Amino acid sequence: MNSFGYRFRITLFGESHGPLIGVVIDGIPPGLPLSQGDFVQDLNRRKSGQPGTTPRYEEDLPLIKAGLYRGKCTGAPLVILFENRDFSSKDYEPFTDIPRPGHADFTAKVKYKGYNDSRGGGMFSGRLTTALVAAGVVAKKIIAPVNVSASLLEAGGSEKIEETVRQAVEAGDSVGGLIECLADQVPAGLGNPFFDSLESLLAHAVFSIPGIKGIEFGSGFHSAEMRGSEHNDCLKDKEGHTLTNHSGGVNGGITNGNPLLFRVAVKPTPTITLPQETVNIATSRMEMLRGTGRHDACFALRVPVIVEAMTAVVLADYLLP
Amino acid sequence: MNSFGYRFRITLFGESHGPLIGVVIDGIPPGLPLSQGDFVQDLNRRKSGQPGTTPRYEEDLPLIKAGLYRGKCTGAPLVILFENRDFSSKDYEPFTDIPRPGHADFTAKVKYKGYNDSRGGGMFSGRLTTALVAAGVVAKKIIAPVNVSASLLEAGGSEKIEETVRQAVEAGDSVGGLIECLADQVPAGLGNPFFDSLESLLAHAVFSIPGIKGIEFGSGFHSAEMRGSEHNDCLKDKEGHTLTNHSGGVNGGITNGNPLLFRVAVKPTPTITLPQETVNIATSRMEMLRGTGRHDACFALRVPVIVEAMTAVVLADYLLP
Amino acid sequence: MNSFGYRFRITLFGESHGPLIGVVIDGIPPGLPLSQGDFVQDLNRRKSGQPGTTPRYEEDLPLIKAGLYRGKCTGAPLVILFENRDFSSKDYEPFTDIPRPGHADFTAKVKYKGYNDSRGGGMFSGRLTTALVAAGVVAKKIIAPVNVSASLLEAGGSEKIEETVRQAVEAGDSVGGLIECLADQVPAGLGNPFFDSLESLLAHAVFSIPGIKGIEFGSGFHSAEMRGSEHNDCLKDKEGHTLTNHSGGVNGGITNGNPLLFRVAVKPTPTITLPQETVNIATSRMEMLRGTGRHDACFALRVPVIVEAMTAVVLADYLLP
Amino acid sequence: MNSFGYRFRITLFGESHGPLIGVVIDGIPPGLPLSQGDFVQDLNRRKSGQPGTTPRYEEDLPLIKAGLYRGKCTGAPLVILFENRDFSSKDYEPFTDIPRPGHADFTAKVKYKGYNDSRGGGMFSGRLTTALVAAGVVAKKIIAPVNVSASLLEAGGSEKIEETVRQAVEAGDSVGGLIECLADQVPAGLGNPFFDSLESLLAHAVFSIPGIKGIEFGSGFHSAEMRGSEHNDCLKDKEGHTLTNHSGGVNGGITNGNPLLFRVAVKPTPTITLPQETVNIATSRMEMLRGTGRHDACFALRVPVIVEAMTAVVLADYLLP
Repeated sequence: MNSFGYRFRITLFGESHGPLIGVVIDGIPPGLPLSQGDFVQDLNRRKSGQPGTTPRYEEDLPLIKAGLYRGKCTGAPLVILFENRDFSSKDYEPFTDIPRPGHADFTAKVKYKGYNDSRGGGMFSGRLTTALVAAGVVAKKIIAPVNVSASLLEAGGSEKIEETVRQAVEAGDSVGGLIECLADQVPAGLGNPFFDSLESLLAHAVFSIPGIKGIEFGSGFHSAEMRGSEHNDCLKDKEGHTLTNHSGGVNGGITNGNPLLFRVAVKPTPTITLPQETVNIATSRMEMLRGTGRHDACFALRVPVIVEAMTAVVLADYLLP
Repeated sequence: MNSFGYRFRITLFGESHGPLIGVVIDGIPPGLPLSQGDFVQDLNRRKSGQPGTTPRYEEDLPLIKAGLYRGKCTGAPLVILFENRDFSSKDYEPFTDIPRPGHADFTAKVKYKGYNDSRGGGMFSGRLTTALVAAGVVAKKIIAPVNVSASLLEAGGSEKIEETVRQAVEAGDSVGGLIECLADQVPAGLGNPFFDSLESLLAHAVFSIPGIKGIEFGSGFHSAEMRGSEHNDCLKDKEGHTLTNHSGGVNGGITNGNPLLFRVAVKPTPTITLPQETVNIATSRMEMLRGTGRHDACFALRVPVIVEAMTAVVLADYLLP
Repeated sequence: MNSFGYRFRITLFGESHGPLIGVVIDGIPPGLPLSQGDFVQDLNRRKSGQPGTTPRYEEDLPLIKAGLYRGKCTGAPLVILFENRDFSSKDYEPFTDIPRPGHADFTAKVKYKGYNDSRGGGMFSGRLTTALVAAGVVAKKIIAPVNVSASLLEAGGSEKIEETVRQAVEAGDSVGGLIECLADQVPAGLGNPFFDSLESLLAHAVFSIPGIKGIEFGSGFHSAEMRGSEHNDCLKDKEGHTLTNHSGGVNGGITNGNPLLFRVAVKPTPTITLPQETVNIATSRMEMLRGTGRHDACFALRVPVIVEAMTAVVLADYLLP
Repeated sequence: MNSFGYRFRITLFGESHGPLIGVVIDGIPPGLPLSQGDFVQDLNRRKSGQPGTTPRYEEDLPLIKAGLYRGKCTGAPLVILFENRDFSSKDYEPFTDIPRPGHADFTAKVKYKGYNDSRGGGMFSGRLTTALVAAGVVAKKIIAPVNVSASLLEAGGSEKIEETVRQAVEAGDSVGGLIECLADQVPAGLGNPFFDSLESLLAHAVFSIPGIKGIEFGSGFHSAEMRGSEHNDCLKDKEGHTLTNHSGGVNGGITNGNPLLFRVAVKPTPTITLPQETVNIATSRMEMLRGTGRHDACFALRVPVIVEAMTAVVLADYLLP
């Protein structure tokens, strides 16, 4: 199902080459001020245009169609639509029979029995993350003064991001990236033991973003190599502040009042112009495939603001009464 | 909330030093054969007794109290209880004012306003994972012939697990561990784009297990360093089998018919006998704390079967009609 | 929250005098054929225009904006929008301080702290039922050959519906109505004991329709006066067909293979042109209020197709795998 | 599924002739005082023993097994068990092939493919309502000072309840009943338009009680016969109090600050000792069936406290933050 959240619930829809994409946001407290201008900064951060991102250009104008009256949220579902304008579907036709390696072409075909809208990746397109970013803008307003901030630490294993991406573009290839996200001023006490642990809901939300292959909190995978005496964060005051933050701000599934800190791994964009061998599922023959269409060489460049958005969505769900 | 799942839903309850812990399992197809004997193997794998695990010994006898009739599941909720017998609560009294570093003592106190049952960690105890393993046993029967298998690859960063754990025990310390889980015979087509992606639900479930700090699918964090031409798994037949499995068996949030593969990082057990400095939240003074009670020096030794259980629970949710 | 359903989930949005209303429908099996033409008949049945219905005229053209490709549902969320064109908001201005008796003016103001879009009743308008009817059209296609059919038995307590409504219109008043709904070819075995009983979900869905004040299954309220020997429906064959249908096709919360039969009571439209005394909540003074705006004298005339829609939505939820 | 509620969630389990029945209650605010004594009054009201109720006698001792510590709820799930002791399963054997008219014997067999525990009606037994009443006791403590009170207005269409029931018992027959429920001190503003309207959730909850065949709010079915000028409740002050209460305290799905008022119809107990003709589904032959086992001649006598419980459960769900 394409909904997420209990108290702050988002419902996502649309396809890359259909008329629009959008999101319904339910659970917004009535009276929250909101305008189109609130969306500009985050939508721009997600946008293409920088080297290593797709040349597809969409204006990304959020059309607020319900739930807003006289500049304030009404308490009814907020509906935000983004029209699709700049698409060229013919680029994608070959992929229905010759699935791109690493892409959802094959799995979508199986799941939807061939009826999915395969143009531009359909619902699997990064295009839909525009709507997630929009939901994040609303969530960020709700969770203030909690502040969420993510950035790309490395691309292709290198901190020289620009250079690494340029080399990948030149080679007709793509690269992955490593993103760190930090939320500060998160109050202690959010989360639950077991199923609705903060890590559970946050990981659930973050793995909704296409291309994410890993998430780790605090010391994360390095924790597995540590001893307790190293890993334990000693408390230094009765507010629960700790000397170190190996836990990433969460103990027992519940925030501890220290910054929430996690990293996510973004895989390289699967569509590349370098030729790759793959099967034609109509003929069962192996064929060479060369990616067409417009794609990011490093989708990870655009992911930080999406990670922020999903983090804010989860925090809003916990913080709303 | 302490429930998880849509079609196969588990509800967890109980505290470490209360009379019992248990689980309600809803959504089991009527007619599924089940007996106490089915639980023995997995419950034994989770049990303490090996070096590095707590000396607390519980018989772990699953008491099936509802939902079973004449050896078959009825379709009504299955209730499995485990009585607690071997506990010594007095060991835990100091922790209500002096929270153990790295433990949920502090966060539980904040969240539950001091009313939580803090004896033995209350609901935050590893004891409750007994009930998760029991739910996993039922789920595994439902998803057959899909087979889920997890093992501990390393403890404390070393593949010499036994020796590493022994050294930690001797030092009064603890170590974390790295677990790999593989599910094979998973059919292609399970999952969804976005919110109910296979990675989303699986990560949600796995982060329900206490002490997990990271999860990665396929090449995981290494993907962030790779190029698309390396990471993409080339298809070799029309069933979608691939030459490599960097994706871990999932593309676009949907299984691709290859083995589902992921790793999780388990942090070191926070309670150690080495002295640690921490704050007394009643007096605001720093004090030296030395762990008492009975604890695992390497909880990760017991986690593989719990990871298997949560994986099976998620797959059952997808596979049930 | 403005979503309903597990396997077949609808999310409703929009306000009476905003730019549009609509619905997201999730869970549609990929491959279901669908076109704008499929909606005509049911949307026409809901439409105004007959005597006793509002003179507001909307074209009710369903704009399918996502989830449909080459005439078939894709399996992604289906989005149907209806633009609002013919509205005159100034008619509603007085009601923000002087709540109409029997209307949601007062309760909406309390719940939404005055931020709700009060124009035309905002989200509380019957206008939104257009989207429910659209969802019902899709649901009906899914549940075929199950057939759902509802009709108005009485208006204002009289079977001479047309005449009764005409008299109410002439008097500047309104009347309620009694609707019967029958679903046949419903297979036995749908439903659950207790919380997700068929009556529970159906009543949940039907009470979503504005103005419904009662629902009864089979003999309903008359059952309370009957003896078991009269009320029990004797089975006549091993398919469970019964000689009578006092149960309305449901026993123990589960369909029994006989026609599903229930009745709902629709209250009279609260907005009337006859003067009514009510309080001005700004001044605390009593005032005479005379309804303006355009309203149905007998909203019940338009409700049968909405009841069918909600019934089909519930049955789709049970029937989808 | 056997769970109900979002913020206050109950999960029901057990069978009539299994070892126990019970309920898990999640979402209780930590610190709520609770003791076995709190349950006595409501459990006694539900109990058998009065003329017209089953001679089966259960002590109904609530065993609180988790979620309570030092007399206060901990915030973890509360588990309440009731052991079954006084049952005689052999009475029910004939019904697996010869379904009782009006009972769930047939529908349970279809739904659960014959694997349901049919002894004593299994999960379909009124016995499980003991656990609902227990959940109601907890909910009532949460919603105080809101007060919920239900009573039996009529049995078999007569206000001379005792006499009517006695005549039915003498005749080997059973009778239904009409119950009215009133909740006062309900604050205005609870509920939603459409899917989670107060009537929707309340009807969902109330139809979970076995044997309910109708529910109506305020003037209910009589509303269908009224004119707007009669039905509209005129406001008399700015708190929204009204001169009449035809709406039953709800407008637009949201409470209006007046008493919440509704009635429910309970059908006559299906099991009667009078002979009834029904089919043997093994042989397809018609047979005469005479009810055995121990049953209420008027189950409606015991239903008021169950209706109160489900009402309190719904109100707790709305009132909890």
